[in-house]
Amino acid sequence: MHKWQERSRPLRLERRFEFATYELTRDFLDCLGKLCEKRQRFPDISFGKTYVNLTLQIDSEDEDSQASDLDKEFAMEIDALIDEDSD
Amino acid sequence: MHKWQERSRPLRLERRFEFATYELTRDFLDCLGKLCEKRQRFPDISFGKTYVNLTLQIDSEDEDSQASDLDKEFAMEIDALIDEDSD
Repeated sequence: MHKWQERSRPLRLERRFEFATYELTRDFLDCLGKLCEKRQRFPDISFGKTYVNLTLQIDSEDEDSQASDLDKEFAMEIDALIDEDSD
Repeated sequence: MHKWQERSRPLRLERRFEFATYELTRDFLDCLGKLCEKRQRFPDISFGKTYVNLTLQIDSEDEDSQASDLDKEFAMEIDALIDEDSD
């Protein structure tokens, strides 16, 4: 979770992933797509040949709300898709 | 080609695609991925559940260069991935 940044207005979690090759980027995106479908949660994703930027929008009624445990759990599930010491 | 916008600084072609379902978005991204690999050309892609925004960066030495025929050909190949009357 430590590689995610929590930002406000709008409240969201952001993280950038970088990969050595386009194949690794595609593999990650395929796994991520399956997880999104399973959780029915669809982050905003932007990617190029060897990077992926993820933005998890967070439902927040009031100004000082924070990422919920559910949000953090989803972020950690995404982290688990990559071998942490490979990035 | 008419649905692409040419923008400058930096010179690029942009287009937004929208889909009825996440499955259609994924199908498009899979086909696009194969085309990118075949052409070894990797646009900046951002997408969510039912939209894909594409940005084709264009190599331009001087201020008044334009998208080349090759750039436009690649854009039309991407257009061909979707059934034009479906979006």
